[in-house]
Amino acid sequence: MSPDATLGNIRIVLCETSHPGNIGAAARALKTMGLSQLVLVNPRRFPDPEAQWRASRATSVLDNARVCGSLDEALEGTMFSVACSARSREIAVPAVTVRNAAAQLVDIARTHPVALVFGNESSGLTTADVNKCRLVAAIPANPEYSSLNVAAAVQVFTYELRMAALSDEAPGSKPQVLASHQDVEGFFGHLESTLSTTGFLDSEHPKKLMPRLRRLFSRTQLETDEVNILRGILKTLANPRKRGQNK
Amino acid sequence: MSPDATLGNIRIVLCETSHPGNIGAAARALKTMGLSQLVLVNPRRFPDPEAQWRASRATSVLDNARVCGSLDEALEGTMFSVACSARSREIAVPAVTVRNAAAQLVDIARTHPVALVFGNESSGLTTADVNKCRLVAAIPANPEYSSLNVAAAVQVFTYELRMAALSDEAPGSKPQVLASHQDVEGFFGHLESTLSTTGFLDSEHPKKLMPRLRRLFSRTQLETDEVNILRGILKTLANPRKRGQNK
Repeated sequence: MSPDATLGNIRIVLCETSHPGNIGAAARALKTMGLSQLVLVNPRRFPDPEAQWRASRATSVLDNARVCGSLDEALEGTMFSVACSARSREIAVPAVTVRNAAAQLVDIARTHPVALVFGNESSGLTTADVNKCRLVAAIPANPEYSSLNVAAAVQVFTYELRMAALSDEAPGSKPQVLASHQDVEGFFGHLESTLSTTGFLDSEHPKKLMPRLRRLFSRTQLETDEVNILRGILKTLANPRKRGQNK
Repeated sequence: MSPDATLGNIRIVLCETSHPGNIGAAARALKTMGLSQLVLVNPRRFPDPEAQWRASRATSVLDNARVCGSLDEALEGTMFSVACSARSREIAVPAVTVRNAAAQLVDIARTHPVALVFGNESSGLTTADVNKCRLVAAIPANPEYSSLNVAAAVQVFTYELRMAALSDEAPGSKPQVLASHQDVEGFFGHLESTLSTTGFLDSEHPKKLMPRLRRLFSRTQLETDEVNILRGILKTLANPRKRGQNK
């Protein structure tokens, strides 16, 4: 696949953006780096003349931007997603550098749609939103002032994506059939309900059990077959007697 | 020399900037990446409230910005300088990537003042100005639309400078306590026996089930705590009634 086609498979998702100028500046950043898919989750003001002005000659990206009502809707159909967040926190997903995240995104984008998710200007992404992604990535900023403008952060990330896409085109291992966002979330839901039913997970004192399990499985980039096997195991273990009766 | 001191030796020079908002956004970019020296050659409007606004909480960089009447004055005392320019042209200086330029700048900035020079928003740097520098560096942009906003370009370059300055320190993430070979094998043994007992794994026709599960979990480099959680889940799921009786 050509670098252009790979970059065309990468969605940039902006959540709850307050300032339309930042949406325009992000659109310009996308176009300069050869990306085209901008997805806006509940933007406060869009469309807006300030977005058009800051987009300069990248208005085609704005015109084709998709507006969604939720992050789940924005991630529908993706096979891999990375949350951008500077804040350190208790999270379920592994944290990596921008460069590492870009390499993984580009590797998968050669064959599947992927997404890179940015939060609101003042509050960033919610922990719930970060946990919907497979990885979290941060720009290694000055610890005394780590607040990059959101469009500036988009420029840095998309620059790293372009660098990764242009670097050797050796895709590494043969592409597997990766599980989709919905498949993986379906597995986590099944796991959580099974652990609740059997009493391993105490719903009133869940501690960090589900975040830890999400972190473990998010590191693996689950494949479709694997999700099916894991769900089969859950089903059998939760109902072992049925099997026994058939014998 | 510490990364902070090295980055403190790097001047960012903006020539003939038209929009004060870009000066403010550049100041913010500098501060987020741990740089502090902003030099302005004949800015059209400075100081200006829009620069203050776009600088967000990086106004200290603006307050300390030095205004010069010429690029020669801005480069005085530096030992090395890089011009940022996307335009290909007849130039006297070698052209390199941003990453390569950042590595060279940081290397020299450990012991001497250096500078990175950006041009005007619409016309860029003059050939005369480029020729005053030792290298010219470009961000590898989309050939159909290569016009990065000047503050966005400053963000990308300063990001690469910070990455280069930090590279020796290999920050990485805190090492986890990885599970030993025995721990992981113990888990696989426990998994296999549980799957056999419950009937999910047919010992006479095992197919590829265990190899597939091994492949999945081997990709993750399991941690000790995770092995304990997984074995706890197996134990509970295989004996759900015991839990139920305790309630």
